[in-house]
Amino acid sequence: MYPFGPGLDYVRNGWYAAGWSGDFGEALLTRTFLDEPVVLYRTSAGEAVALADRCAHRAYPLSLGTRLGDTVRCGYHGFTYDGHGRCVAIPSQQHVPAAYGVRRYPTLERGGVVWIWMGEPNAADEAALPDLHELGLTDPNFHVDVGGVNTWRNRYQLINENLLDLSHIEFLHLGTIGTPNVAASPVVTTVHPHMIEATRTIHGDQATPLHKRALGIDGSMDRTTRSLFFPPGAHVTQVLMVAPGSNARFGQPGYFGEFKQAHLITPSTAIETYYFWSIARTSHKDAQTSAFMLDAFRTVFAQDGVALEAQERSLQRDPHFHELSCKADEAALKARRLLADAMTAENTVPRPLHAVSASSSRRPQ
Amino acid sequence: MYPFGPGLDYVRNGWYAAGWSGDFGEALLTRTFLDEPVVLYRTSAGEAVALADRCAHRAYPLSLGTRLGDTVRCGYHGFTYDGHGRCVAIPSQQHVPAAYGVRRYPTLERGGVVWIWMGEPNAADEAALPDLHELGLTDPNFHVDVGGVNTWRNRYQLINENLLDLSHIEFLHLGTIGTPNVAASPVVTTVHPHMIEATRTIHGDQATPLHKRALGIDGSMDRTTRSLFFPPGAHVTQVLMVAPGSNARFGQPGYFGEFKQAHLITPSTAIETYYFWSIARTSHKDAQTSAFMLDAFRTVFAQDGVALEAQERSLQRDPHFHELSCKADEAALKARRLLADAMTAENTVPRPLHAVSASSSRRPQ
Amino acid sequence: MYPFGPGLDYVRNGWYAAGWSGDFGEALLTRTFLDEPVVLYRTSAGEAVALADRCAHRAYPLSLGTRLGDTVRCGYHGFTYDGHGRCVAIPSQQHVPAAYGVRRYPTLERGGVVWIWMGEPNAADEAALPDLHELGLTDPNFHVDVGGVNTWRNRYQLINENLLDLSHIEFLHLGTIGTPNVAASPVVTTVHPHMIEATRTIHGDQATPLHKRALGIDGSMDRTTRSLFFPPGAHVTQVLMVAPGSNARFGQPGYFGEFKQAHLITPSTAIETYYFWSIARTSHKDAQTSAFMLDAFRTVFAQDGVALEAQERSLQRDPHFHELSCKADEAALKARRLLADAMTAENTVPRPLHAVSASSSRRPQ
Repeated sequence: MYPFGPGLDYVRNGWYAAGWSGDFGEALLTRTFLDEPVVLYRTSAGEAVALADRCAHRAYPLSLGTRLGDTVRCGYHGFTYDGHGRCVAIPSQQHVPAAYGVRRYPTLERGGVVWIWMGEPNAADEAALPDLHELGLTDPNFHVDVGGVNTWRNRYQLINENLLDLSHIEFLHLGTIGTPNVAASPVVTTVHPHMIEATRTIHGDQATPLHKRALGIDGSMDRTTRSLFFPPGAHVTQVLMVAPGSNARFGQPGYFGEFKQAHLITPSTAIETYYFWSIARTSHKDAQTSAFMLDAFRTVFAQDGVALEAQERSLQRDPHFHELSCKADEAALKARRLLADAMTAENTVPRPLHAVSASSSRRPQ
Repeated sequence: MYPFGPGLDYVRNGWYAAGWSGDFGEALLTRTFLDEPVVLYRTSAGEAVALADRCAHRAYPLSLGTRLGDTVRCGYHGFTYDGHGRCVAIPSQQHVPAAYGVRRYPTLERGGVVWIWMGEPNAADEAALPDLHELGLTDPNFHVDVGGVNTWRNRYQLINENLLDLSHIEFLHLGTIGTPNVAASPVVTTVHPHMIEATRTIHGDQATPLHKRALGIDGSMDRTTRSLFFPPGAHVTQVLMVAPGSNARFGQPGYFGEFKQAHLITPSTAIETYYFWSIARTSHKDAQTSAFMLDAFRTVFAQDGVALEAQERSLQRDPHFHELSCKADEAALKARRLLADAMTAENTVPRPLHAVSASSSRRPQ
Repeated sequence: MYPFGPGLDYVRNGWYAAGWSGDFGEALLTRTFLDEPVVLYRTSAGEAVALADRCAHRAYPLSLGTRLGDTVRCGYHGFTYDGHGRCVAIPSQQHVPAAYGVRRYPTLERGGVVWIWMGEPNAADEAALPDLHELGLTDPNFHVDVGGVNTWRNRYQLINENLLDLSHIEFLHLGTIGTPNVAASPVVTTVHPHMIEATRTIHGDQATPLHKRALGIDGSMDRTTRSLFFPPGAHVTQVLMVAPGSNARFGQPGYFGEFKQAHLITPSTAIETYYFWSIARTSHKDAQTSAFMLDAFRTVFAQDGVALEAQERSLQRDPHFHELSCKADEAALKARRLLADAMTAENTVPRPLHAVSASSSRRPQ
């Protein structure tokens, strides 16, 4: 499917955001990641659990069942599973076959986010997490506000590329965060190991009302925007605002402030995507500014959501769309290549049995 | 499609409920059975008629036309058909070719139900009807209340199996008809000629508020539940309630009463099913008890409908679902095998021309 | 797809109505013709422009963008196109490659209608327009009222055939324009070069309330109805009403009046169609009569729309429908043959590159 080749759907071996820490509690929550329905909850010991949301017996969604202590009992015939996905009770018989169970997905809770690994479980490695400090989730100089989650009816890659070509903010976000000299300013794209960076500095830019209200910036500034993408699904937009010509960094004279906006993009289905977001800042850490910021970005997201869903429908009408690119697409095209290569590699390597039979209900060994 | 193999959709040679007798009248009623739209009405002589609901001329639904005496006139160009499906008038010309017509489906009205035969018309045989006495429709000791029809967005076999594994009532219907010792009580499954039976007796069960109100039972009872399935689409749930240890039958001391709940399951499409239901009982035959019973079971059906539609969506998301079974599935698995064998046999035997060309509008000879 | 063979979807080389002249203005309007989304507007010089409604860059709909003078700027990243479809600006770079652009569709504005040519651009020829005088759009003896556009969820050919077999008005439009002797009156069908005609005269017909109110006709009349079809998508229904036996023509004694109702049928998708309509008449040219006529025909169209959408759903349920025809179908079957032959011819001739790659965004040379 555009923009990837046939047979390339998702990078599976990587950490995706499954939810904010606050989403995990006593209640059973269902979300679909990479076409697989997942039931999410937190055990009494505080561990975040992610199981296939489909009873191994007759495919009834476990999320419609009941928590019994740290187990989940299916609401249809009462099959019961523990937090490892093992079937521990079948009400109509004494014996529970040892192999009975549902798939359990590895999770990690870091930086206020529960991360999930949808691929080969043995490959799940904490070292593959995105840089939480860069994302603004663990940087002590920043105050973080969790924005929540958008669920958009468009393929995930449209969001990845939206975030890697910020020239769009001059047009799509004119009136909110856009200023008239964004698109024409030069961008430097760098491919780091495991990360793609696109950086643009606008000298003598005018502060928008948003910057003024959020950070107290008035008049002219030098604004450097770094867009970082940690495949497969984590982005941050870092905005550094300093006095014109000062080249100031944190703590130095002329430093006005910084934003780090995290964008955690998790495919739900081929045409639906979760978009978890937070916004961190270095100053004006009061609650009113937080409320203002979150509200302002909800307006910006409304613009993006309408646009990307329209783009999605346009692509669905013409599956053979032949695109034309420009220089500003460099970072997006590099990200696209990187994801396509990862998908191709995953498709080439023989996948272990329990990954191949993801649709099976047998518990992984 | 799950749980049947590829190419197995419906058993066609068998009687399905087309409607309750009261559904058939002067008005044209349309229902879709086994993917075929059917127009239903009753002639002035009282005969229930079922014709293909698609004018042979340009496919306009006949149900949008007009009754003219015992004929139906198409609302588009006026082609008119009698109760045998023969075209008897074409307004724009004098001559009506003898072969012009629409398919007429055999019907039988028995036990307050109009039964329809969607398969080979020559094979339609009254002897193939389910046992109406067992269904509680013609048993003089019982008072019957017609519940109506549910239309659910799920494949029919989910309902057949729901009715053959009553262990689910402990979980899905807890709070209505479920009691906590249902699932663990043993079930005896018997395959009779043309019928599958699953029987479970619970000794010393507590009467639920429903049993108390409907039959005046208070305190403890021995409860025997017989689930009978007459393929392809008729079920009855018979509940015999007697004094503990009495082994009483109708008219004997210790006999509290019986229910016979008929469930007539007719596939509409691959993922939609009609569920006609009635409930018969041996005592408390007053109108208030009828109203109470019908209302109570509407609540129970709401639980089943929500659950089965959720199960359907879960199966649609994973067409390769690999199920795991338990002992309580014995009757359901036997019914599944029986239906699959019947479908395979129908697919193997060369079907007569007019059955093969069910989609044709030529009148069967 | 019914009623055409596999691979036959649309006649492409022909003029279809894209809209009424009044639909074209400053604002960007989007419509989908023959499965292709098109953005429509009028330049400051008054020219009607039709471009592919999909930015060549990332498929964003241009209709969600902005008019800048006579150009359209994409609302996502700012790519800008002139009225010829040429890309004239890419905000993030200086250079615009010469080949960048979107497809421009030939248009012609005649008779108050903007006509569009969806096929091979070099074949677009004004001589292929339907006869605007016959359609009632340019006949000086007639007053024209534009009715607007209906958008119906049915394949276009159902409308073409509806208009060529007016025997339906006795049944579908009984109570509005139908009279009880329409279907039985004989029809003469003639295939002219580039036009099919079906004519029916009813002698001594009763004027309906509509005829009475619209043209002041009372009592008996001879009514001649000519249905003309100019492939691929223009119809007119001409109704000549004269004193019984007078054989009167315009200006002669016994001439009551005439209607010319234009029906311009443009396929949107395989199952959705635009139906542009106007109604012209020779007398009672006052505004109240116009309002009465338009309102009366809106009621008639409501009957047609409901019927054809029901017919469409019936056909979708049975893709193998085997129809039976009658004498009144002669004109419709001839029109069907003519369109099928044109489609087959278009499929056989190798199409030029830019027509084959209609889904490409490269500008036709």
